[in-house]
Amino acid sequence: MLTIYAIIVIINKCRRYAMGYYSTSLEQEKVIRDPVHSHIYIQDQIIMDLINTKEFQRLRRIHQLGTTSQTFPGAEHTRFTHSLGVYEIVRRICNQFQRNYPTKTPGDGLWDDSERIVAECAGLLHDIGHGAYSHTFEHIFHTNHEQITQAIITNPETEVNQVLCKVGPNFPNRVASVINKTYDNQQVVQMISSQCDADRMDYLLRDSYFTGVQYGKFDLDRILQVMRPYQGGICFKMSGLHAIEYYIVSRFQMYLQVYFHPISRSMEVILAHLLLRTKELAESSTKLENFNPTLLMPFLEGTFDPSRDLETYLKLDDGVLNTYFSMWCDTPDSILSDLSNRFVNRKPFKSAIFTQETKDVLPKLRKLIEAAGFNPEYYTATDNSYNQPYDVYNPESKHPNAQIELMQKDGSLVELSKASLLVRTITGKDVGDSRFFFPKEMLQTDANVELFKPIYDNFQRYINNDTIINLKENQ
Amino acid sequence: MLTIYAIIVIINKCRRYAMGYYSTSLEQEKVIRDPVHSHIYIQDQIIMDLINTKEFQRLRRIHQLGTTSQTFPGAEHTRFTHSLGVYEIVRRICNQFQRNYPTKTPGDGLWDDSERIVAECAGLLHDIGHGAYSHTFEHIFHTNHEQITQAIITNPETEVNQVLCKVGPNFPNRVASVINKTYDNQQVVQMISSQCDADRMDYLLRDSYFTGVQYGKFDLDRILQVMRPYQGGICFKMSGLHAIEYYIVSRFQMYLQVYFHPISRSMEVILAHLLLRTKELAESSTKLENFNPTLLMPFLEGTFDPSRDLETYLKLDDGVLNTYFSMWCDTPDSILSDLSNRFVNRKPFKSAIFTQETKDVLPKLRKLIEAAGFNPEYYTATDNSYNQPYDVYNPESKHPNAQIELMQKDGSLVELSKASLLVRTITGKDVGDSRFFFPKEMLQTDANVELFKPIYDNFQRYINNDTIINLKENQ
Amino acid sequence: MLTIYAIIVIINKCRRYAMGYYSTSLEQEKVIRDPVHSHIYIQDQIIMDLINTKEFQRLRRIHQLGTTSQTFPGAEHTRFTHSLGVYEIVRRICNQFQRNYPTKTPGDGLWDDSERIVAECAGLLHDIGHGAYSHTFEHIFHTNHEQITQAIITNPETEVNQVLCKVGPNFPNRVASVINKTYDNQQVVQMISSQCDADRMDYLLRDSYFTGVQYGKFDLDRILQVMRPYQGGICFKMSGLHAIEYYIVSRFQMYLQVYFHPISRSMEVILAHLLLRTKELAESSTKLENFNPTLLMPFLEGTFDPSRDLETYLKLDDGVLNTYFSMWCDTPDSILSDLSNRFVNRKPFKSAIFTQETKDVLPKLRKLIEAAGFNPEYYTATDNSYNQPYDVYNPESKHPNAQIELMQKDGSLVELSKASLLVRTITGKDVGDSRFFFPKEMLQTDANVELFKPIYDNFQRYINNDTIINLKENQ
Amino acid sequence: MLTIYAIIVIINKCRRYAMGYYSTSLEQEKVIRDPVHSHIYIQDQIIMDLINTKEFQRLRRIHQLGTTSQTFPGAEHTRFTHSLGVYEIVRRICNQFQRNYPTKTPGDGLWDDSERIVAECAGLLHDIGHGAYSHTFEHIFHTNHEQITQAIITNPETEVNQVLCKVGPNFPNRVASVINKTYDNQQVVQMISSQCDADRMDYLLRDSYFTGVQYGKFDLDRILQVMRPYQGGICFKMSGLHAIEYYIVSRFQMYLQVYFHPISRSMEVILAHLLLRTKELAESSTKLENFNPTLLMPFLEGTFDPSRDLETYLKLDDGVLNTYFSMWCDTPDSILSDLSNRFVNRKPFKSAIFTQETKDVLPKLRKLIEAAGFNPEYYTATDNSYNQPYDVYNPESKHPNAQIELMQKDGSLVELSKASLLVRTITGKDVGDSRFFFPKEMLQTDANVELFKPIYDNFQRYINNDTIINLKENQ
Repeated sequence: MLTIYAIIVIINKCRRYAMGYYSTSLEQEKVIRDPVHSHIYIQDQIIMDLINTKEFQRLRRIHQLGTTSQTFPGAEHTRFTHSLGVYEIVRRICNQFQRNYPTKTPGDGLWDDSERIVAECAGLLHDIGHGAYSHTFEHIFHTNHEQITQAIITNPETEVNQVLCKVGPNFPNRVASVINKTYDNQQVVQMISSQCDADRMDYLLRDSYFTGVQYGKFDLDRILQVMRPYQGGICFKMSGLHAIEYYIVSRFQMYLQVYFHPISRSMEVILAHLLLRTKELAESSTKLENFNPTLLMPFLEGTFDPSRDLETYLKLDDGVLNTYFSMWCDTPDSILSDLSNRFVNRKPFKSAIFTQETKDVLPKLRKLIEAAGFNPEYYTATDNSYNQPYDVYNPESKHPNAQIELMQKDGSLVELSKASLLVRTITGKDVGDSRFFFPKEMLQTDANVELFKPIYDNFQRYINNDTIINLKENQ
Repeated sequence: MLTIYAIIVIINKCRRYAMGYYSTSLEQEKVIRDPVHSHIYIQDQIIMDLINTKEFQRLRRIHQLGTTSQTFPGAEHTRFTHSLGVYEIVRRICNQFQRNYPTKTPGDGLWDDSERIVAECAGLLHDIGHGAYSHTFEHIFHTNHEQITQAIITNPETEVNQVLCKVGPNFPNRVASVINKTYDNQQVVQMISSQCDADRMDYLLRDSYFTGVQYGKFDLDRILQVMRPYQGGICFKMSGLHAIEYYIVSRFQMYLQVYFHPISRSMEVILAHLLLRTKELAESSTKLENFNPTLLMPFLEGTFDPSRDLETYLKLDDGVLNTYFSMWCDTPDSILSDLSNRFVNRKPFKSAIFTQETKDVLPKLRKLIEAAGFNPEYYTATDNSYNQPYDVYNPESKHPNAQIELMQKDGSLVELSKASLLVRTITGKDVGDSRFFFPKEMLQTDANVELFKPIYDNFQRYINNDTIINLKENQ
Repeated sequence: MLTIYAIIVIINKCRRYAMGYYSTSLEQEKVIRDPVHSHIYIQDQIIMDLINTKEFQRLRRIHQLGTTSQTFPGAEHTRFTHSLGVYEIVRRICNQFQRNYPTKTPGDGLWDDSERIVAECAGLLHDIGHGAYSHTFEHIFHTNHEQITQAIITNPETEVNQVLCKVGPNFPNRVASVINKTYDNQQVVQMISSQCDADRMDYLLRDSYFTGVQYGKFDLDRILQVMRPYQGGICFKMSGLHAIEYYIVSRFQMYLQVYFHPISRSMEVILAHLLLRTKELAESSTKLENFNPTLLMPFLEGTFDPSRDLETYLKLDDGVLNTYFSMWCDTPDSILSDLSNRFVNRKPFKSAIFTQETKDVLPKLRKLIEAAGFNPEYYTATDNSYNQPYDVYNPESKHPNAQIELMQKDGSLVELSKASLLVRTITGKDVGDSRFFFPKEMLQTDANVELFKPIYDNFQRYINNDTIINLKENQ
Repeated sequence: MLTIYAIIVIINKCRRYAMGYYSTSLEQEKVIRDPVHSHIYIQDQIIMDLINTKEFQRLRRIHQLGTTSQTFPGAEHTRFTHSLGVYEIVRRICNQFQRNYPTKTPGDGLWDDSERIVAECAGLLHDIGHGAYSHTFEHIFHTNHEQITQAIITNPETEVNQVLCKVGPNFPNRVASVINKTYDNQQVVQMISSQCDADRMDYLLRDSYFTGVQYGKFDLDRILQVMRPYQGGICFKMSGLHAIEYYIVSRFQMYLQVYFHPISRSMEVILAHLLLRTKELAESSTKLENFNPTLLMPFLEGTFDPSRDLETYLKLDDGVLNTYFSMWCDTPDSILSDLSNRFVNRKPFKSAIFTQETKDVLPKLRKLIEAAGFNPEYYTATDNSYNQPYDVYNPESKHPNAQIELMQKDGSLVELSKASLLVRTITGKDVGDSRFFFPKEMLQTDANVELFKPIYDNFQRYINNDTIINLKENQ
């Protein structure tokens, strides 16, 4: 009779045979120290090799939270550690599924562990296309980090692609399709992208750890414990209802307290205007001293093509942009140098909340700001930051989200907001605010330039409790 | 060809066949919440059944640290959670061994996972024989918790034994032999009992968590990662040297800061004298009001026999003893009632360090204490608390410890103290102190009973900086 | 001119003069180690003396969470450490108030630090009247721990009262009036009793720490930072809105996940029935072997009077009750012994949710349970556990709560639920469930007593997904 | 009679009068969120203004641990948060001193709280002169961050100096003299620079938090509690012996485990060689494509003068250097581009330990490395990393350290190593190792270039267990 260890040897051989050299386990697992998950466990050669590619190493130079560290100074962490963290959570989900829900017959809706490697690679690489100050950069230059992620994984010139190809010629496409949600196994897709996926779970815990706030610290161990595969993807045992509820509320709180913080948004506004000014100056024919944005040229000129200019894109990281901004503090263009200085030396704009009822006040405020000597195009902005903490599936939405399903003891499913009063309340609600940003100078009360004092005073009448108010005609 | 999941099904069946009903995994693992390890994962029916026995549930009523909570009030944790924690660490060690060092041929010095169940049971049950205020109780009444542990596991009348027998008639003996170190697989033995075992690792972390001190927080994840099986038992990879070093120092610090704390030892002294007085009163023929130590009788009368009186022993827990002490606060025997009151209402003795050079002062101090109205037999004590933070193997020692071995890349072993300066320093050194305990009253400076003032003053001349000093003749 | 340190000396003297010996600071503060707050800082002699009273030391023997440790085994903490923690939070609130909002003219609505000592004493003593398994005990024996708290503080025979009297003859009454909310300074009252007070803040953090759940870990530092005194008591700066919101949700989660856990409630049901049986047996004339509940007699006989029998009450702690239960496992009354055994050895009842729609099923279930051999009076129960996570002030409510007010920059106040969508949702909503409890035996599927199988099968038809369901007539 | 609050108002006015506008407290303290200390409390206008200077904001762009994040990826934190942390610890020390040891008569050796502001400023600014990859940069370019710190504080052109001058014209010199240890109040000096100072305490905790290791987590609260001022500076109460001991061991462990990690040192070696090559290329007359180290020119040309070129120095941050390295990956100089690539894409050298006995092997190894095609000047290095975990005062040492003194109850002092066996052991001992660094290629075993195989094989004979060994002649 076969002893157990003989069978295990057979399994390892089978796996090796089926998947080729690259899916063999490392003889002994390797670990990377991580403050959020304690250790990241690397068990396959391919994962180690992907981490060592230059495209992945580059993530060390892209901060996870952009301007948020201007508000929460500890938040200096990068997309590199976040990506490792997502991989680690995927690995742990696979372990739990394999322990408790191994498939017995194909199509039984349970977990087929031969999907593990594609899931782990997709988790590791899901953010590989992010660049410096991604969201603002994309907004100004019309790039798209998701498109670039696909390019990096599938373009034969990248090291990432070359490593993935060792598993098989179609493997890069499989990994890419998990990330863009077209992969056929929904369990794998939902591990990486759903309303309670490894990506969100890692960034909540990580952003919480590095900012030092308490809010994102939901109970990862408990959620991993109640997660389970089923025919339609991934659901949660009903006994985990409150753990999920708490996760949703944690995420809600992180948006309100951290991601939407007015100071960080203010720094983003300055950054956006700075990049806009850069673009305009590049487009103008004037030659400016101390202004050589060589690495930005394809973006400034609008000629960037992800398939052709991948290498240029990969050169850009936070340090490169900051170096430009730092040099531009001394450029003769007064708007560029002033905005650079505000960004580099952290001089945020102030802001006030406005609503549908008070938005008509904004033109008046812009005029006052202009009267005080600031070009409103660069020195004012509005920003609407809203998020839906939880969303029921809506096929007509632009980005329909898989809703969260809970499985009862008898196998039936209940959608989360039906089971939770707390979640029901916030389902589909836009949470956040609309803010008007303006130079701090407008709030001066002890202005020593007498000329501007009446303008400042007039401006300040419209703001109470950080909110824009309507004034009666005769006020 | 067999698919992977088919093989897994076969393995599960094999395991079931080889080991009988009781070794089958639970279909889905169960979890117990634990603040130290986050969750305890229960994967086998037998572990769940052992936890539900009345002998194991009784550990909920035995505090882990006796009188230590008088100094560190958070330390209210019990042997119940500690025992679960030891099980959990054993489980995690087995997982790591099975993942990284599975045996290929019998006798290759690697890990045979069919040993897992006996290891896990031994980890869970290693403290099952502990009673209320174990160490003090044993000292006064000459019981032995290790002997009682063996009895509980092997006596057919206990629920524990009945559960274990379902695995096989010899299984209780196998578990018992792991605990008393006579089991033949040294890997299993050393998991439970060695200088870096699951028992010590759990209690350091747990005592540290509940007392709130920082000292015991060594790096469990890292140690589990560098542990490995070998022919002689368990060793550690050389890359884990500093993690082990830190563990040794953590343990050293916990002894100095927590386990040897003078206030806790002082409360233990009071407890010992209280039990001693109880014994003497029971032996005397006088009938005392409010003094009915029914459950203690076999111990007071010296007739306790572990095989016969197991049930009596199992009735005794911290609450029972405390209830007696509480009632004895009102007993007419003034020594019993005073000591009870000091113990129940936390009125610790004071203490001072003495050495070989100053121990001759003690008789003088005892006389002064007697002159102040205290019976020195009950109101003074000496206690020597010493521990060796790390010990090289010494076959002539009474309790020889397996020394800690580190494995180099080429497979050769180096004994820990040879590799670590820090450990070498403290190897074999007795660390701790000797203290003389006495009533707090002796340190009064504003005594309002004029009669005793000269005695107190005289006494206090012998103590400086909490240490007993010699006085020259003419002082 | 007076130097600064000279003035400080004057202040210390003034304080001493005004308040007498007892309000003088300790020359150097003392600390108690606490895992939740790291250290408890003792700065006044009176606090040290109160801690050393026997009434306060007794709290070491009363668990904070009663039967909850049957579900979360780490939750062995006592009312002793909780009381210290409440004191510590009060102390920190006073520090912050004194730093940022010191009163300048009487009645200006700012903080008068001469109120500190009464606030700290009230925080320390607010739970002094709690007894063993308080809530269940009170329910069965009609005692009232709040009334007993008042008695302990004001009765001249207690050590607590004697210590308080050293401040002044009326000081015990002042402290007692803070606890029963009749004290005239609402800032002091609300520190101890309001919807966001030191009591609740400590128990959430502490219960969270010892159970090991994540849910109660709101951001204490942040809340202490945004708290401020005002004319009407205590409010919070608007910038702290989300910290308060998170605290409310944390509390909500702790109720759902920990305090209302079905297993703990099940053990409470068993305890209640056990005490009920005790009462009935005591009332009956039959003499029962092994049944001598001496310390319980005033309660069993209904003669307990808090002013006269305080000493008896103070003898009762968890250990005393558990000792009785342990002895009663062997009593000849089969109901008492069976319930004792279930309680001592943790054999919880099972439970199922019922609603207004299904409550008519309960009589049928009780009949089936009776048919299976269980007396429904002792072996079934219903329990409705509901809580309002936040309540707007309602003067007509039985226990009107001070609502939480937020102060805007211009000094105006906004009630919490007006500012927070999340809180608005759950305001005034009863959260929890109604459960029917019954013996686990009723859920057996592999019953080996054929006689009962049809009864069990019939019973189980009424329960699906842990919920009681209506069956159609013909089912 | 003056009421207490009236006196407090007087004190505040006195303080304002004595110290000028800048020493007035903020009306309400401000907080900065910090994951290590939870919150940083800002209570004085001057601290807020210093934080907002561009020289201080620049510290956001200088990582605290240089290449360590290549080994511990979480360690992305900057000197900005560390500097805030040192300030916060100084603030807490002052609070404790003022509460427990306020001076009564000048010269009594107790704490004079008018020294607080200079201590807090010095704590905040102690690292203000650090630059990108400080230690390696200084080593190659002979700059000195301590000298630059003094320059930034005292040079009238910096914003830092301008803020400090608002306190008084001599205030910048006072702050600078605390940092260079020439200030006359030793209590203030030792808060910032001694063997247990705010600087070291913050970096241990912070580096530990961000790397995710357990080792540096000593007990800050306890150490702050046992610290006290005395005539000679700062000492510790004897009751804090073990807390200090643990701090010393924690620091020792951080050196061994984190600061001396071979991979980080390997990356530093590559960086040093990269800067060296840059210098040589700048000195050569050849014009190199893609090589425009404009901002580095004063350093490359050796003309840097801290008083004249401060602005140039302040432009250099980690991002600027990394941007250069990134661009140089494509430079035609093969050594510069290869080293840049190894640094940017994390291709560390390997290393092996050598000793006095084996250092003669190094020339042979260098020859083999040269034979394999690597220029030994750039592709090999030795590094000796040693540290003394604790040092007794030695007036003849180059940097004599104030030794740590413990105060006994009778006021006498005991030097730490006399009181602690553990510390005595490691006192004055150099801990660390000497390593030889070389390209990873030398360890290839499956070299596909047959030409080099014999060289690699020969090389590998000299290395066993990561250590260089002597070979007998005939091997």
